[in-house]
Amino acid sequence: MSEPHVVVVGGGFGGLATVKALKHAPVRVTLIDRTNHHLFQPLLYQVATAMLSPAQIASPIRALLRHQRNASVFLAEVTGVDTARRRVCVEAADRHGCIPYDFLVLATGVHHSYFGHDEFAAHAPGLKTLDDAVAIRNRILHTFELAETEDDPRRHPDLLTFVLIGGGPTGVEMAGAIASLIRNTLASEFRRVDPRSARIILVDRAPRILATFSEDLSQAAHARLAGLGVEIRLGHAVDCIDDRGVVVNGERIPSRTVLWTAGVEPSPAGRWLGARTDRAGRVVVQSDLTVPERPEVFVIGDVAACEQDGKPLPGVAQVAMQQGRYVGRTIVRRATGGAPLAPFRYFDKGSMAVVGRNFAVLQSSRFRLKGWPAFLAWAAVHLEFLAQSSLRASVFLQWMWAYVTRQPGSRLIVQHHTSSPAARREELHV
Amino acid sequence: MSEPHVVVVGGGFGGLATVKALKHAPVRVTLIDRTNHHLFQPLLYQVATAMLSPAQIASPIRALLRHQRNASVFLAEVTGVDTARRRVCVEAADRHGCIPYDFLVLATGVHHSYFGHDEFAAHAPGLKTLDDAVAIRNRILHTFELAETEDDPRRHPDLLTFVLIGGGPTGVEMAGAIASLIRNTLASEFRRVDPRSARIILVDRAPRILATFSEDLSQAAHARLAGLGVEIRLGHAVDCIDDRGVVVNGERIPSRTVLWTAGVEPSPAGRWLGARTDRAGRVVVQSDLTVPERPEVFVIGDVAACEQDGKPLPGVAQVAMQQGRYVGRTIVRRATGGAPLAPFRYFDKGSMAVVGRNFAVLQSSRFRLKGWPAFLAWAAVHLEFLAQSSLRASVFLQWMWAYVTRQPGSRLIVQHHTSSPAARREELHV
Repeated sequence: MSEPHVVVVGGGFGGLATVKALKHAPVRVTLIDRTNHHLFQPLLYQVATAMLSPAQIASPIRALLRHQRNASVFLAEVTGVDTARRRVCVEAADRHGCIPYDFLVLATGVHHSYFGHDEFAAHAPGLKTLDDAVAIRNRILHTFELAETEDDPRRHPDLLTFVLIGGGPTGVEMAGAIASLIRNTLASEFRRVDPRSARIILVDRAPRILATFSEDLSQAAHARLAGLGVEIRLGHAVDCIDDRGVVVNGERIPSRTVLWTAGVEPSPAGRWLGARTDRAGRVVVQSDLTVPERPEVFVIGDVAACEQDGKPLPGVAQVAMQQGRYVGRTIVRRATGGAPLAPFRYFDKGSMAVVGRNFAVLQSSRFRLKGWPAFLAWAAVHLEFLAQSSLRASVFLQWMWAYVTRQPGSRLIVQHHTSSPAARREELHV
Repeated sequence: MSEPHVVVVGGGFGGLATVKALKHAPVRVTLIDRTNHHLFQPLLYQVATAMLSPAQIASPIRALLRHQRNASVFLAEVTGVDTARRRVCVEAADRHGCIPYDFLVLATGVHHSYFGHDEFAAHAPGLKTLDDAVAIRNRILHTFELAETEDDPRRHPDLLTFVLIGGGPTGVEMAGAIASLIRNTLASEFRRVDPRSARIILVDRAPRILATFSEDLSQAAHARLAGLGVEIRLGHAVDCIDDRGVVVNGERIPSRTVLWTAGVEPSPAGRWLGARTDRAGRVVVQSDLTVPERPEVFVIGDVAACEQDGKPLPGVAQVAMQQGRYVGRTIVRRATGGAPLAPFRYFDKGSMAVVGRNFAVLQSSRFRLKGWPAFLAWAAVHLEFLAQSSLRASVFLQWMWAYVTRQPGSRLIVQHHTSSPAARREELHV
């Protein structure tokens, strides 16, 4: 009898942890991802704000698994699962096909959601992929270039107003990073427009930012952001986003750059499996992370709905990694005829958010920290969890360099738009 | 009377050298470029072959000029020059406009040329911009992914055949770098296909590669490339390039990845000026690098046709940089009423090409060098000429890291294509 075939879908934190936990197991593993790289999402906002380049937070999945001889990597898009015949349906390049499995692990994550307002998408990009990050970086940098070539100062305000929808960690980190980029770097590089005249507005419908953190940390982050010049508008959802800006609480804020960090929705794993989902669409799993009545199918990470002590587990990297390792060990037990593991339990190592330069908030079940010490802890933890030691060195050196010189790492505008049919004809006074 | 306005078009080696030479001059300078970065083209092939990331060879022009208070940067596309009224016509974002000048310096470079075979362009991308390099990197890496998911081994050969048209430095460096990437890195990362079965074919119509180098250096490079497994086909131009591959000397070579490094053509500066051009389309300039009868208009770098001792100057960075500095000094003399400079003379510091790991050829008017010493000289010179010290450090560390670990720096596939209307439906045997 040949070795059981484990198919893992998704090369994020959860999927990669599963595959690595199977390194010495008597199984064949196939990891399917639609991209060729594992993305370190916690630093994605630094790509979007020009501190890091895409290559510094993305590791080729093949490189990460090159010494694991029982693992293959497949660049393909999953389109469905045939649970009865135990096959995953994929599209790879110009071909369709099915891949049979003995065990299936779905770690397909989430993408951003506009809560039924899909018309917002065209005007307010979200931040989940490298492409998103590069598009946002282009947009932020290009906006200043537009303002520099714009002779009519009445058009400057909406060009240089950045609106971030969502006051969670991503929104807060983006706002702080944009403020730092402007103050520390762009301020000295323009001759006709003053980048410091830019406005950064953070909008959230909750009564405070960083709502998952304790109230004192949330207040500290609020004060710090305000000190960086970020305007924070709480208690009202955004009513409308269009090509002229946003409307919040009846007030129109003209802006050419609106970014969406307010919400996510799960990938369609629930639909593929025909499994029960929670209200958000995440697959409800059992205490061993399998789907009811499908003991060979596991769902982990952001796409799984998993409760612990009556509360849902958060959608963070730590949960996915711990679940991945658990599922790996479970499959080893099953493949070797061992006793089942105790139910999965998440160990909370804490969560953090960074606010501009040198300031972060950190909260775990045991302690809370803010300011410079929390920032150092944040930096150390993020460096530690980068998947490749080369990236660890590279990101560390980039941060040090930027700290000393105030020159961030990657400020390319990859695409720009110089002409349009409706162009105005006018004299530029240079 | 206000200070003279110098408009420089193009932020490459020539344009940037001009602007910097005007740092302390009593002039206003405006540098116009269609991108926001200065590109270090000599290392572009390393981005195309995944060694370096785009940010490592591109410096934001604003950052390079941030301390030069008399210089502004304009992100715009030049569409023409009105020499009679001394104005440059530009498109910036959604606007047209004209920028008046007292002195104009055109340093707009070249793009690749298919010598009248524009139908080749769709099948054989060239390598001049960062976008080109990223597209080629995607294509090379994606090809191996396609082969890995391809069950029919009869389809492997054309997937894994890389054809490079053009045996100049770019073609030779690309061929060597692809061979190194396959041998040192990809070979251990695939499970179903053997990357070492790939063929790399270099085609040139000349009787030898690196025709601008001496015969012994050309032969040494040839032997080295052949030792890396590159097939070299000389003496015949390519007859045809289509979506199935190329035809050379009547023989069809099936290939899904054909790259074009065979020729360039100048940007349309000659047309803008209505000036006399040479056969290739480059603007014929006088010994002070001005256009005849337009003493306020200079043309430099690859787009200028400039003879010295009866021979045309080559299209290399050194020529552009020396011309830029000369033009800067000339403008200073004119603006301050000084005596004119002696005619421009190019000082040849030598040219080089690298062939795979640890091997290069180097030729100047005074000496020739090959092998490991030439490779060290090549690395030192290229590091020295990177525009920012941060990039110097970053590229140096990346090279050292890759040398030790055999893991190059940036292997992202940025876009990939997983589905098409004409998809075949078949079983994948995984």
